[in-house]
Amino acid sequence: MNAKRLALIGAGSIGKVHAANITASGHAKLAVVYDAVPDTAAALAEPLGAIVAESMDQVIGLAPDGVIIASSTASHGEIAGECVNAGIPFLCEKPLAFDLDTAKEIARQAQSAGVMAAMGFNRRFDRQYVGIRNAVRRGEIGKPEMILITSRSESPPTPEFIKTSGGLFAEKGSHFFDLCRWLSGEEPVEIFAMGSVLIDPGYAAVEELDTVAITMRMPSGLLCQLDFSWRAAYGQDERLEVNGSGGMLQTRQAPTGAYEIQTAEGRSHPESLPSWRDRFAPTYTEELAAFLKMLDDPDLNSPLASLSDGVAVQKIAAAARQAAASSKVVRLKETHDAKAK
Amino acid sequence: MNAKRLALIGAGSIGKVHAANITASGHAKLAVVYDAVPDTAAALAEPLGAIVAESMDQVIGLAPDGVIIASSTASHGEIAGECVNAGIPFLCEKPLAFDLDTAKEIARQAQSAGVMAAMGFNRRFDRQYVGIRNAVRRGEIGKPEMILITSRSESPPTPEFIKTSGGLFAEKGSHFFDLCRWLSGEEPVEIFAMGSVLIDPGYAAVEELDTVAITMRMPSGLLCQLDFSWRAAYGQDERLEVNGSGGMLQTRQAPTGAYEIQTAEGRSHPESLPSWRDRFAPTYTEELAAFLKMLDDPDLNSPLASLSDGVAVQKIAAAARQAAASSKVVRLKETHDAKAK
Amino acid sequence: MNAKRLALIGAGSIGKVHAANITASGHAKLAVVYDAVPDTAAALAEPLGAIVAESMDQVIGLAPDGVIIASSTASHGEIAGECVNAGIPFLCEKPLAFDLDTAKEIARQAQSAGVMAAMGFNRRFDRQYVGIRNAVRRGEIGKPEMILITSRSESPPTPEFIKTSGGLFAEKGSHFFDLCRWLSGEEPVEIFAMGSVLIDPGYAAVEELDTVAITMRMPSGLLCQLDFSWRAAYGQDERLEVNGSGGMLQTRQAPTGAYEIQTAEGRSHPESLPSWRDRFAPTYTEELAAFLKMLDDPDLNSPLASLSDGVAVQKIAAAARQAAASSKVVRLKETHDAKAK
Amino acid sequence: MNAKRLALIGAGSIGKVHAANITASGHAKLAVVYDAVPDTAAALAEPLGAIVAESMDQVIGLAPDGVIIASSTASHGEIAGECVNAGIPFLCEKPLAFDLDTAKEIARQAQSAGVMAAMGFNRRFDRQYVGIRNAVRRGEIGKPEMILITSRSESPPTPEFIKTSGGLFAEKGSHFFDLCRWLSGEEPVEIFAMGSVLIDPGYAAVEELDTVAITMRMPSGLLCQLDFSWRAAYGQDERLEVNGSGGMLQTRQAPTGAYEIQTAEGRSHPESLPSWRDRFAPTYTEELAAFLKMLDDPDLNSPLASLSDGVAVQKIAAAARQAAASSKVVRLKETHDAKAK
Repeated sequence: MNAKRLALIGAGSIGKVHAANITASGHAKLAVVYDAVPDTAAALAEPLGAIVAESMDQVIGLAPDGVIIASSTASHGEIAGECVNAGIPFLCEKPLAFDLDTAKEIARQAQSAGVMAAMGFNRRFDRQYVGIRNAVRRGEIGKPEMILITSRSESPPTPEFIKTSGGLFAEKGSHFFDLCRWLSGEEPVEIFAMGSVLIDPGYAAVEELDTVAITMRMPSGLLCQLDFSWRAAYGQDERLEVNGSGGMLQTRQAPTGAYEIQTAEGRSHPESLPSWRDRFAPTYTEELAAFLKMLDDPDLNSPLASLSDGVAVQKIAAAARQAAASSKVVRLKETHDAKAK
Repeated sequence: MNAKRLALIGAGSIGKVHAANITASGHAKLAVVYDAVPDTAAALAEPLGAIVAESMDQVIGLAPDGVIIASSTASHGEIAGECVNAGIPFLCEKPLAFDLDTAKEIARQAQSAGVMAAMGFNRRFDRQYVGIRNAVRRGEIGKPEMILITSRSESPPTPEFIKTSGGLFAEKGSHFFDLCRWLSGEEPVEIFAMGSVLIDPGYAAVEELDTVAITMRMPSGLLCQLDFSWRAAYGQDERLEVNGSGGMLQTRQAPTGAYEIQTAEGRSHPESLPSWRDRFAPTYTEELAAFLKMLDDPDLNSPLASLSDGVAVQKIAAAARQAAASSKVVRLKETHDAKAK
Repeated sequence: MNAKRLALIGAGSIGKVHAANITASGHAKLAVVYDAVPDTAAALAEPLGAIVAESMDQVIGLAPDGVIIASSTASHGEIAGECVNAGIPFLCEKPLAFDLDTAKEIARQAQSAGVMAAMGFNRRFDRQYVGIRNAVRRGEIGKPEMILITSRSESPPTPEFIKTSGGLFAEKGSHFFDLCRWLSGEEPVEIFAMGSVLIDPGYAAVEELDTVAITMRMPSGLLCQLDFSWRAAYGQDERLEVNGSGGMLQTRQAPTGAYEIQTAEGRSHPESLPSWRDRFAPTYTEELAAFLKMLDDPDLNSPLASLSDGVAVQKIAAAARQAAASSKVVRLKETHDAKAK
Repeated sequence: MNAKRLALIGAGSIGKVHAANITASGHAKLAVVYDAVPDTAAALAEPLGAIVAESMDQVIGLAPDGVIIASSTASHGEIAGECVNAGIPFLCEKPLAFDLDTAKEIARQAQSAGVMAAMGFNRRFDRQYVGIRNAVRRGEIGKPEMILITSRSESPPTPEFIKTSGGLFAEKGSHFFDLCRWLSGEEPVEIFAMGSVLIDPGYAAVEELDTVAITMRMPSGLLCQLDFSWRAAYGQDERLEVNGSGGMLQTRQAPTGAYEIQTAEGRSHPESLPSWRDRFAPTYTEELAAFLKMLDDPDLNSPLASLSDGVAVQKIAAAARQAAASSKVVRLKETHDAKAK
């Protein structure tokens, strides 16, 4: 495999993760970094010997082998569009575009132009999730009947940030809607959501919820129940369970520093759950490796989520939001343009 | 405390549990047993030296200190009504009556006649649930924001049985709707349910579901997410979690026979979950003790669920069923006749 | 199986357990109770409709089908001897006799007279221990290389009591020396012990230890490491582990009332370990059932420990004591009279 | 803190860990690497821009700020001696010297010359061990009465290697003898060991054991029980427990990839224990940081083990070996030259 020259768009916290992984991969070089704030780009690029681009045009002009889009949510669509136009493969952090129609159009154009592109649904590379999916596929629990997902964030984002990033259903939900599709191989046909504002009244002011409960039904009758919160007093908590006709699969929390003390009062573990960053660090490494493999071998059956996956997930997030607002089940078309892999 | 003379109505599986507990309590005597099938009553009563009644009239005529109603669901209302008329205190397995209006009427009459009566919501006496409720009340997790409940049965009931017993929402759900009220001290104001028939098509034939997902909202904004199944391949599974602003409480499975083996393939516990009967056996003992205390001291602030609790739970079960049928949120009146304790 | 008429010798705490189990078994009747303190015997016997014997002669005269010896340690030998002389089968709480030579002599006489007799090593009926032994026998962990046993008591016995009961090595150790033999099918050939007095200086005054570490070697080279304490601040703790060439087996604590709370400080279980009595209650039921089966079918290959097992264990306890006193390994004869089953 | 120029002696597996940590520390530079096999040194040094030394003289001539000794066991003494002579601070992987007398002499000279030096007992930097020690020091479990340590290696070293590295007691035991001293603040006064050859008869040919059980007594009466094996079929297993008058502390295994499956057969985790390298990687980072702090501030009360600690541990390892050979307790002088910190 030749070392690939990659461009990184966005030098924020997730951009830094990608930059470090590119440098450490041994199979790629960080060629150029672009960020809307030039100083941010420079701070990341210079110590790593990468060019600091002043515009996307300059990035495209450098003809990188691939682009990683890790900029602000609002900019994804435009940047992805430029990559498609230039015929440069890209890996895009969710969503593909802030607006669903734009996202659909980009996915359509990329397919028609034969541009390799993938969505950064990093959970697909988590060791526990991969293990559970493989066990489901091997039939270890029979036919799946219920998926339960809990996701609670370590600390809540500000209402201002959450508005620009697409809201709880899109920002947090996308990963878990994709997990439901990816685990079951089915697209939801019905979705319902109910939510509250319990953490910060500021969310209500921007028409957002901070605590939600979601139910989806798959064509097979499989039900998915998800609960999200922007806050967990005890640390980042993300759990998944699949109950099937023959058994049940569950992820387990993997707390750090976990010694145990037993006294007359009971048993304690003065431990902490790993931060989101620590828990999922390996998934970004694996995801990059998959992207590099895809660049090398376009025919490869890649484990990366496709743009169609990204579009399907955006539809679900939008439907969830609509369900919460209307107190009614929202039906999704059974025949999606793209089926879950 | 004087030994109380108790009447037992219904000599089926749950009646036998009550009979054994009465005999072992040391504070009560099983005076009389009545069952629609006289031989069933005799088989239980005779070895214990209890009278076998041929009718409810005969039971009433014996003037027992209290009646335990553990007969078939369809008969509860009539028997409870006779107890109220005779002024005899009773403990009634759920529901108070098959029909909600009948249940309300009995509750109203019992209150007006000052007849002590209680519902057999035995989970209120489970050690883990009591511990969690106390922790919530002490503020150990701050303000509750999300309750999650999973209940899966060891083996599914027949469609025929489930129809006569009130269906999944009533038969299984009642316990958990009551737990949500009892833990939070709130009555739900909105409820939604979505369900599937995945275990046995026979359920569909009797207009029943076997796998459901339910969401409720409390006036404070607290959300409750429940998932029920009539089957768990791995044994009776019942779990509850409360997430709050300051922490999270969870029950834990308590498998039996649980040694552990570690090999190159990983870690295994060739264990089994306790049956429903074994897991909840202590709750029936505690419940009976509470009923005997109530007989002795009517002014006591009893931990037993009241008839009003029973009526409130029946309303919720009916609303859940309606929500599943209509694919819409069902709103419950905020001002119930009886508030959860 | 005919209901057996059993005599119970000793109406103390363990005698009461046997009496309750006999009554509940459905296959036996408590015919007679004898205790050195007549009132103690009467208090147990009368409510159960059993005769209160004034002497062992009276017990023998009543010709019970079997005798359960649960009297004080010092009296075991004499009572067991009387049973052997009368040809009455018996189940004897450990030790068979306070003095090793007496124990050997009784075992010899019982064998020569063909009197069925068994030792009350109840751990052989514990579900976890049985599971582990079966797994070892099935070869699930290959060849056993190390057995680890921890036993810590909920609260320490008084120095006075411990002296009359045979000391830490005999009183507590016997169960675990037997477990090592029973799990491995080997008799130890070397034993070492080191101990301290850390809980109560009163133990030193009666030439006893309260905290000990023991090492044994089996002929195969298998090592056994045991640690005993008369106290555990956190409750009765008993754990066993077998490491083998192919894997490792471990018992697990089974705490009661174990809900979990997670906060920013970590994870806690405000639980308690079950008392010795609760944890091992089922073993006494199983042990009695095995004794009743043995009475019914003398040719049965009984899971009960034999008198030879009792003698072998007493030898080990004595050797452990000698090792601790001498700071040297004590070698046990490789050719025991009786091999572990 | 100025970036320190460090010399690395030994470019084997542990040398590579140190080199990577030096490079990543941000506070140090790998200035020079020396290895008895020059190509090995070059392979490590050149990509990192470090000088490849041809001799220890050349290393000394470059006047590094500190030396890390990670060469073969047999060479430690000579290299440490040269560092002492040159007055260069060093961190030495255990043992300080193959021969106990040599080790004592080096420790004496370093102290007299005022050369800062430390032993690489990396477990002192493990998060679980540090947590347990702090809990002990805070009195959370009262007075320690029993320490239990289990250490089993993922795969056995060859008999040839183990002979040159000092044997099971020294090679594996040193870490755990040091942990007992460090946790308790006491030096053992009595030690006993019993061992077997169960894994590979080749160990017997080099007068080694592969499976051992060790008991130590501290002056306070605290007992330590350790069991070591060169093999665990289920992965690298290292556990520690401290029981005290007021409670019990335990490390916990932290398996990776641990999802859970529950079926009718029980519960399984198709997980693996982390390798020794992965589990203890963070301790080498912390240890290096402590060494760099010591270089910067010689008066600092360093958490690093001292040369005296290294000598004390070597004495214990030698005594353990002697005890195993003699089947007798070996007494260690109560007044050591150096007390455990």
